[in-house]
Amino acid sequence: MDISATRVKELREATGAGVLECRKALEQCNGDLDKATAYLREKGLAKAAKKADRVVKDGRVEVYAHPGNRVGVILEVNCESDFVARTEDFKTVVHDLALHIAFASPHYVRPEDIPAEVLEAQRAAFQSEAAATGKPANVLERIVQGKLDKFYDEVCLLRQPFVKDDKVKVGDLVTGAIAKIGENIVVRRFVRYEVGEA
Amino acid sequence: MDISATRVKELREATGAGVLECRKALEQCNGDLDKATAYLREKGLAKAAKKADRVVKDGRVEVYAHPGNRVGVILEVNCESDFVARTEDFKTVVHDLALHIAFASPHYVRPEDIPAEVLEAQRAAFQSEAAATGKPANVLERIVQGKLDKFYDEVCLLRQPFVKDDKVKVGDLVTGAIAKIGENIVVRRFVRYEVGEA
Repeated sequence: MDISATRVKELREATGAGVLECRKALEQCNGDLDKATAYLREKGLAKAAKKADRVVKDGRVEVYAHPGNRVGVILEVNCESDFVARTEDFKTVVHDLALHIAFASPHYVRPEDIPAEVLEAQRAAFQSEAAATGKPANVLERIVQGKLDKFYDEVCLLRQPFVKDDKVKVGDLVTGAIAKIGENIVVRRFVRYEVGEA
Repeated sequence: MDISATRVKELREATGAGVLECRKALEQCNGDLDKATAYLREKGLAKAAKKADRVVKDGRVEVYAHPGNRVGVILEVNCESDFVARTEDFKTVVHDLALHIAFASPHYVRPEDIPAEVLEAQRAAFQSEAAATGKPANVLERIVQGKLDKFYDEVCLLRQPFVKDDKVKVGDLVTGAIAKIGENIVVRRFVRYEVGEA
């Protein structure tokens, strides 16, 4: 199949993948840009999953304050080597994450970081909300799970829609960076301050 | 008494006080620069103490990272009004505090912020160290207190010697800023991250 250079360029811009990978993906998907994007994303996820157990002891501490210094963020993102920590690709991802946190005010990095007592209180509240609908027990459990999923999407950094592109989740941004950069990358911790907040 | 303009200038640079205040302090102290500095510092403390109960709900979130982004700091300092929060004097103090924290790694703002269990563990360790000297009980208590004071000087921001001028404590820097700026100023909270720390 004949794949145009323009099409390859579009796919590169959309995914950040290399020229050969993009050409191959387009060939696999008969030149369909959306399918090729999905194909590359799957491949990226597979690549990223293979790296998820690798030790990350290097990285970068990023700080960011909104103009006027009423909101600020500090963030540590880890990678495997200081070589990667100093690349523009890594710096860009880390900066984007800090910016996102300043705007979107997540409370936790991932659902596993929510303290047990917070999670149980939230679950109990959702359970009584669900019970009030009078629906059967097996439906209630699914309602509660759905509400909890939505709660994770709201308060967990990696589950939030990314401020610069709300079609991707922040976690996908990190996964994409792992696939592109080729090292495991882990968002370790962050703090967001706002002047005068309780 | 005749006070030279050079002398007044020196005192202003040392204390940040106004021309008239410096001239008056030098007159009071027969032109002695050290005595006049101490005199102004006392006056500043008195001024600052008068403001210590005032409500601080404005302020600034400062962020700072050492070049290379392996160490970063986020800090909230409160003052009474957004007018003061936007002054260069306030910004300078807040930036100096962030820089100090990056270098000196304090753990707490002030002794009152040390969690009870940390303080008790520390006190118990000092008590057994002191007991090992075999000195009488009344002396032991003073030894333990001395060791605790030194511990506060090490781990509490406001008790540490200021990195840019180790003759003053960070707390004195804040007190001086209160006297100079004329509003209550409170260091509320900070976090310091270092890549890969436990």
